[in-house]
Amino acid sequence: MEQLKWQVYKANMALPEHGLVTYTWGNVSGIDRASDLMVIKPSGVPYETMRAEDMVVVNARGEVVEGQLRPSSDTPTHLALYRAFPQLGGVVHTHSTHATAWAQAGEAIPAFGTTHADYFSGDIPCTRALTAEEVAGEYELNTGQVIIETLCGREPLHIPGILAYQHGPFSWGCSPDEAVHNAVVLEEVAKMAWISRGINPGLRRIDEHLSAKHFSRKHGAGAYYGQR
Amino acid sequence: MEQLKWQVYKANMALPEHGLVTYTWGNVSGIDRASDLMVIKPSGVPYETMRAEDMVVVNARGEVVEGQLRPSSDTPTHLALYRAFPQLGGVVHTHSTHATAWAQAGEAIPAFGTTHADYFSGDIPCTRALTAEEVAGEYELNTGQVIIETLCGREPLHIPGILAYQHGPFSWGCSPDEAVHNAVVLEEVAKMAWISRGINPGLRRIDEHLSAKHFSRKHGAGAYYGQR
Amino acid sequence: MEQLKWQVYKANMALPEHGLVTYTWGNVSGIDRASDLMVIKPSGVPYETMRAEDMVVVNARGEVVEGQLRPSSDTPTHLALYRAFPQLGGVVHTHSTHATAWAQAGEAIPAFGTTHADYFSGDIPCTRALTAEEVAGEYELNTGQVIIETLCGREPLHIPGILAYQHGPFSWGCSPDEAVHNAVVLEEVAKMAWISRGINPGLRRIDEHLSAKHFSRKHGAGAYYGQR
Amino acid sequence: MEQLKWQVYKANMALPEHGLVTYTWGNVSGIDRASDLMVIKPSGVPYETMRAEDMVVVNARGEVVEGQLRPSSDTPTHLALYRAFPQLGGVVHTHSTHATAWAQAGEAIPAFGTTHADYFSGDIPCTRALTAEEVAGEYELNTGQVIIETLCGREPLHIPGILAYQHGPFSWGCSPDEAVHNAVVLEEVAKMAWISRGINPGLRRIDEHLSAKHFSRKHGAGAYYGQR
Repeated sequence: MEQLKWQVYKANMALPEHGLVTYTWGNVSGIDRASDLMVIKPSGVPYETMRAEDMVVVNARGEVVEGQLRPSSDTPTHLALYRAFPQLGGVVHTHSTHATAWAQAGEAIPAFGTTHADYFSGDIPCTRALTAEEVAGEYELNTGQVIIETLCGREPLHIPGILAYQHGPFSWGCSPDEAVHNAVVLEEVAKMAWISRGINPGLRRIDEHLSAKHFSRKHGAGAYYGQR
Repeated sequence: MEQLKWQVYKANMALPEHGLVTYTWGNVSGIDRASDLMVIKPSGVPYETMRAEDMVVVNARGEVVEGQLRPSSDTPTHLALYRAFPQLGGVVHTHSTHATAWAQAGEAIPAFGTTHADYFSGDIPCTRALTAEEVAGEYELNTGQVIIETLCGREPLHIPGILAYQHGPFSWGCSPDEAVHNAVVLEEVAKMAWISRGINPGLRRIDEHLSAKHFSRKHGAGAYYGQR
Repeated sequence: MEQLKWQVYKANMALPEHGLVTYTWGNVSGIDRASDLMVIKPSGVPYETMRAEDMVVVNARGEVVEGQLRPSSDTPTHLALYRAFPQLGGVVHTHSTHATAWAQAGEAIPAFGTTHADYFSGDIPCTRALTAEEVAGEYELNTGQVIIETLCGREPLHIPGILAYQHGPFSWGCSPDEAVHNAVVLEEVAKMAWISRGINPGLRRIDEHLSAKHFSRKHGAGAYYGQR
Repeated sequence: MEQLKWQVYKANMALPEHGLVTYTWGNVSGIDRASDLMVIKPSGVPYETMRAEDMVVVNARGEVVEGQLRPSSDTPTHLALYRAFPQLGGVVHTHSTHATAWAQAGEAIPAFGTTHADYFSGDIPCTRALTAEEVAGEYELNTGQVIIETLCGREPLHIPGILAYQHGPFSWGCSPDEAVHNAVVLEEVAKMAWISRGINPGLRRIDEHLSAKHFSRKHGAGAYYGQR
């Protein structure tokens, strides 16, 4: 658990280093599947003064089991994603500029190039709007539910990020580090897609065979990118 | 008073750290309500060489009561805002890039997402144009007046920033620090709104129930964001 | 002369600090009016390794009178400006991103706001295209001439920068430092103008009375910005 | 060979310094023409921990002859370029933001100004799409082939970079350093071209005589830019 707290702390500190957060916006969590305990950033604490021991440990019901501070207000969203997808080890939420701009625009980020296809199999979806009832009720839980609904049974590690409508991006991975990595990629892909469509407003998606090739260079049995 | 001078000095120095100012543009003030004395940046002094003792203390009529330097030329704007709104403890003016671009465009920044709604209750207004008489007369005072007119009786802490037409942003808060915080948020929200509308030119405002929810997560009796 | 070389060196080094240059692009000069000698950056030398003693001293005919290196290839442009305008003490040329983008677009930068009006009295002009003959002949001299032609008898210190058509910005001031200052402002104003017109494509110029007020706050007998 | 490994290592490290790469994206190679051995970045290794001794040496058939790690997956593209163009000493591939955005848009970067013309003789081409067969087959080799096909017999050092359709930029030069230099220029030119066309959507190319003049200032027998 101390190791996971350190991992989650380091992953949170990576958000400002990568320029993904302003002030206290954004949070990273990690989960220990053996004990079903999640470690998450405390709510509204500045990154500059945050320490590893400030990380909050919560159980599957979101109750604090360790830590002096209140957990991120987005805790129920993180828990919903871990519950639905046992393959996840880390979840990230940010308000990174370009990904948030697409979320505000209410549009999926179209797969325009190989940078996108190296990480995401197809467009990066944008959820539907939450209803007034969903917002008035358990808002953060329902944010998690609508993400799960939008993924629609697809493998989340093949679409390791999504846009919450009018809100901002969530991403995930096998570990807190990988979830941050995917948050960085999502932001960069969002920026490129904005510029590409500015250059060519009628732009179509990447050729299917090129997209599939790049995704498979990095994923699955035939992957040959990186050191093995 | 020494403590307030230090706070105002630190808040001014935070402007270049957050990339909000070029050269000497921008200024932060703070007020001591007990003595009705305001502390403000000296006019046209570079941030690199500015010291806490360079801060200028003025009374409610804008007369210098302490300090060797002339106060910011925007002093009457700051004083007008403090006079109209007793709840303010700090005021900021910058020419930050994206907020200024919206002010030059003469448009309110539409509330497009939760990042905006976390801080601002509704659009970030843009003032009407000052008349030739208002500009020829007490220009800086009239800039304050038109901001007050634009707020139109609404709670300024619920709209903690505004665009002065063809000029740039002003923001405020309970303290100099909080006013700077709101200046940073205003700039980031302005950037996101520009990009969102570039992606989707027909974009509409954030759903009312989502906007209200986010504002209330951070403001008022039911707030549950952060540590309490 | 040693003092001027140091000033010109420091002013050149300020270009990469302000993010105005890539590699060896850009150059600053200063002039000593008593001796009619100009100090300028050597051609194609990287900023990281450049030293004050590398600055090149040339006379009014552009002949090197001191220094081991060849002067900037833009030397004849600088000399033409100093010859035409005795009030200048420094000249800068850069390929800064947004100012160059306007030069490439072949459009003057419209005066959209007070940031612009604080420094420039009216639009920032773009020169006409040079003819094939002017380019084939003394190209750098003709670049200076077309800048002078475009200013058309107006006070250059009231329009302290211009766009060379399909090329990039030149700026100037009473000293090398002030010329760099105006290069930084020109780039920032160019960026803001691009964004403002993106937000509101039908955007008109700043109200004349507001523009005149801001220019006069910083220039002339009635100026009241800064310390005097 | 140790010297070339050091050069290639330093050139790779220059990519993140210039903001051209995110994580492990991008790679630089260099070639020793005497031994026909190529040195290239290992695949998927983070820049922060990479050392000079991690560089991989491969022969003309792409077989590793020195080094513990697997070479970049783009190795066959680099080798194809070296084979076709004996004048090349270095090759770079990145996913730099603006160049990649143009590649995704599927458009050549039009020569809009002298910044472009200083380095590139004419537009920066975008390759045709690879066919499904070319992607399914030796994809990286075919990426090299389509670049060679697009250059169509022109001198590659006069067009020292290109866009691979829906993918990203490749650049080259006489050395690894020069190839990185051209990658930086390509990215900056791509950014300026995007902004210029945003300002003036009907924008035409730079005047031929101005373009030719600038290219010849830096290239060929009559070049007079820099120190000789």
